[in-house]
Amino acid sequence: MEHKALKDYMRKMNDFEHAMTLIGWDLKTGMPPRGADGHISALTTLSSEIFRMTTSEELKGYIEEVKASKTIYDEITIGSVRKLERNYEQIKNMPEKFYVDYVELTAKAEHVWEAAKQNNDWKGFEPYLEELVKMSEERAYYINPQKPVYDVLLDEYEPGMTGNEIDTLFTTLKNSIVPLVEAIKEQKREEYRGFKGTFSKEMQKEAAEYLLDYIGFNKLAGRLDESEHPFTTGKAPDDVRITTHYIEEDAMSSIFSVLHEGGHAIYEQNIHPRFKGTVLADGSSMGIHESQSRFYENIIGRNKAFWLPIYKDLQGIITPYKNMSLEEFYRGINKVEPSLIRVEADELTYNLHIILRFELERELFTGQLAVKDLREAWQDKMKKYLGVVPQTDAEGVLQDVHWAGGCFGYFPTYALGNIYGAQFKKALEKEKGDISTLLMEGKIGEITAWLKEHIHQCGSLKLSQEIIAESCGTGVNAAPLIEYYHQKYRALYNL
Amino acid sequence: MEHKALKDYMRKMNDFEHAMTLIGWDLKTGMPPRGADGHISALTTLSSEIFRMTTSEELKGYIEEVKASKTIYDEITIGSVRKLERNYEQIKNMPEKFYVDYVELTAKAEHVWEAAKQNNDWKGFEPYLEELVKMSEERAYYINPQKPVYDVLLDEYEPGMTGNEIDTLFTTLKNSIVPLVEAIKEQKREEYRGFKGTFSKEMQKEAAEYLLDYIGFNKLAGRLDESEHPFTTGKAPDDVRITTHYIEEDAMSSIFSVLHEGGHAIYEQNIHPRFKGTVLADGSSMGIHESQSRFYENIIGRNKAFWLPIYKDLQGIITPYKNMSLEEFYRGINKVEPSLIRVEADELTYNLHIILRFELERELFTGQLAVKDLREAWQDKMKKYLGVVPQTDAEGVLQDVHWAGGCFGYFPTYALGNIYGAQFKKALEKEKGDISTLLMEGKIGEITAWLKEHIHQCGSLKLSQEIIAESCGTGVNAAPLIEYYHQKYRALYNL
Repeated sequence: MEHKALKDYMRKMNDFEHAMTLIGWDLKTGMPPRGADGHISALTTLSSEIFRMTTSEELKGYIEEVKASKTIYDEITIGSVRKLERNYEQIKNMPEKFYVDYVELTAKAEHVWEAAKQNNDWKGFEPYLEELVKMSEERAYYINPQKPVYDVLLDEYEPGMTGNEIDTLFTTLKNSIVPLVEAIKEQKREEYRGFKGTFSKEMQKEAAEYLLDYIGFNKLAGRLDESEHPFTTGKAPDDVRITTHYIEEDAMSSIFSVLHEGGHAIYEQNIHPRFKGTVLADGSSMGIHESQSRFYENIIGRNKAFWLPIYKDLQGIITPYKNMSLEEFYRGINKVEPSLIRVEADELTYNLHIILRFELERELFTGQLAVKDLREAWQDKMKKYLGVVPQTDAEGVLQDVHWAGGCFGYFPTYALGNIYGAQFKKALEKEKGDISTLLMEGKIGEITAWLKEHIHQCGSLKLSQEIIAESCGTGVNAAPLIEYYHQKYRALYNL
Repeated sequence: MEHKALKDYMRKMNDFEHAMTLIGWDLKTGMPPRGADGHISALTTLSSEIFRMTTSEELKGYIEEVKASKTIYDEITIGSVRKLERNYEQIKNMPEKFYVDYVELTAKAEHVWEAAKQNNDWKGFEPYLEELVKMSEERAYYINPQKPVYDVLLDEYEPGMTGNEIDTLFTTLKNSIVPLVEAIKEQKREEYRGFKGTFSKEMQKEAAEYLLDYIGFNKLAGRLDESEHPFTTGKAPDDVRITTHYIEEDAMSSIFSVLHEGGHAIYEQNIHPRFKGTVLADGSSMGIHESQSRFYENIIGRNKAFWLPIYKDLQGIITPYKNMSLEEFYRGINKVEPSLIRVEADELTYNLHIILRFELERELFTGQLAVKDLREAWQDKMKKYLGVVPQTDAEGVLQDVHWAGGCFGYFPTYALGNIYGAQFKKALEKEKGDISTLLMEGKIGEITAWLKEHIHQCGSLKLSQEIIAESCGTGVNAAPLIEYYHQKYRALYNL
């Protein structure tokens, strides 16, 4: 049975979050420039309302009631309580003053970071990062003084995962990717001229809408907008919004960002409606979420078989591609080339950007690395893993916003997403046959149906480890990803 | 001095309202179809939060504190308390059960009305209107059992105004307009062919943006979107949003709706920033708000002098107007012709549509008219005032949503807006000279500056009667409107 009072309580929290989500979306899409103060003020009020509701005595009472008679409550109530208790544990010991100071610091640090990146001014940002690391350590202590700091931070993004586990996974991955990239580099492949051209916004928008329809993004329950950086937001499953950006000289950027955000959105749209209004109506973890976005972007979107049935349509929309063969297109979208910027990296080297960040941020919290040495450590690892070294801070240690926002433990979820995704691919193929065959036959719906059944519809009722165990019959494991990369890139580069 | 705790309290209410405003805007503009339930749920939660805050013991305490030592507090605090107390009085005696039932009834009745209008089914809507009148009477009783029901209802839209006062104003107006319209009708003017054509959405949108810039709508603090029915919303003064609709065969509809909503928006954008975050950061009353929208739509927008400096630009954008002279354009936008639909009526006959609705709704609450006789009474008055009789309910008694939403007392504010507007015009001209001269010289900014100084910047610190007394030196008075109509239409129709 359900717990009526708890259900109403969650509905109210959900309604406040609903409002915050829309305000956050508007802030980055169509808000008039002067509207920011009003939006931020409303966000502050609503988030402190949610904070209060997350830690209230009333909620604690409901949690205790449900835990005391677990057998009589339904799965949604039990699952919600597990998640609510986790959230509660995260903040119950945090002094409100500390919480407010911390939120203020991250807001300020993001601001400073923005200017520092623009001016290549690592020194200007360093003291803020120093302070962010210090407060994050303190934060972790309030949450759980027994566990390693980094593991506590990680728990916010990938519950149940530890730094050691990730380190093992990433070391295996790194040892396999670095030599593969080396071998590819030696080939010195030609430029793909066909990608050059001028691409009107209208043309790119039409392609974006076409691809969203094709992969199964439901426009009755979502919409596409423009923003500086692409993102997915909204409330699952009925109102899930994605954005992209249109670059005039490069249509690829929006095409693959739409497939990526489309993957996030299809996940959210497929969450079972029975979770509506509860805390379970969202993704299981950041890693699982990234596994879905990367599944649509890479495993599907960079597969030749995906484009076979629709490449002619794409050429009809993106007319400058008229003279580029599917083969050239396919090679172009899979060109491997070590580079400086994470968000522009190819499918393969992307992992190395993540592993580098994971190793560095973890060392910051084990005491092996001091903030003052971070820039140099960044340079060293770039050289070692990718063979390229940034000449400016904007292209180096200052390129991402995450640390400025206090989001330590966030980065690894991107590569975990790749690992999970390949595991799902393997399990899916065992049941449904080769993905390429399905794609070639235009049966992308069957792929989505499998993902929906095993992953999407669960919402956050299950942890990532539970989802993987149940759908793949194994633990988290990098082997399928490594196998997929070797197979794909050895064929592409005749290795 | 200010009252710190009250200020923070209002800020919080304001933040909740901010969220509601954005959700309401999104609901009518870009929301994905399935998003409605989530939006409505959030609106319900937020509005009950505001209801609670409006009637809390905490707020009552602040109000008493301020009232007990009026001399030490500043104008904003005193003004806010006056408004908060008025809001409090409105609902303090209302049982929560009644309030919830009432909100439910209006939601349901709007739904039924929509279907009834579509099917010309007055009988289907009648029992709901019956119930709405009954509950509105009960509502008025909870608010103030001493005052006439209709005056209580009116107070929500036009504080301080009574049914008797409006009746006197409207009778004068009616007695002057009906014969004027009769005289015009006898002229049997030709059709204005120049208005016919096909007008692309892009063309109309460009004209809308051009006109908004020209009249002084600030795009740093607002935006223009599309919706089925045009409206203005947002939080003054920094985020004020308007919408319009584009009809392919008629560019006039969007041009004048943009001038109308632009007038509402300029009012809100010009509210003094010192009121931000308080209950005073909105318009004084519905009547004053309409006076501003109608000022820009009619007194300015249907004046030939307004178009003189920009008509060539308009022809450059709305290219089908290339062969229409300014004179024909001017006559066309001021064509008087009695018709069935309020929102499509010309400047002059519009008032008769309003007076009819005012008289009917007032009679519903004085017991002079029963709901079952409303349709017939509507037909009779249409014939008497406008000389036309609707053949269907959709064109007649069911045409407007207001009554279905329980908004009795709303209609008269439209014609009050016309009356106030002409009073402002007269006062403005006394100070700045003839409006037509200013417009001809492109000095629309001077007109807006006057309106800003006397009306806009006050927010809702002053009641409409106070604004009129201070800016015009008189009470509310229909003579300037009647004079303006006679002067304008006698010239246009050579009477």
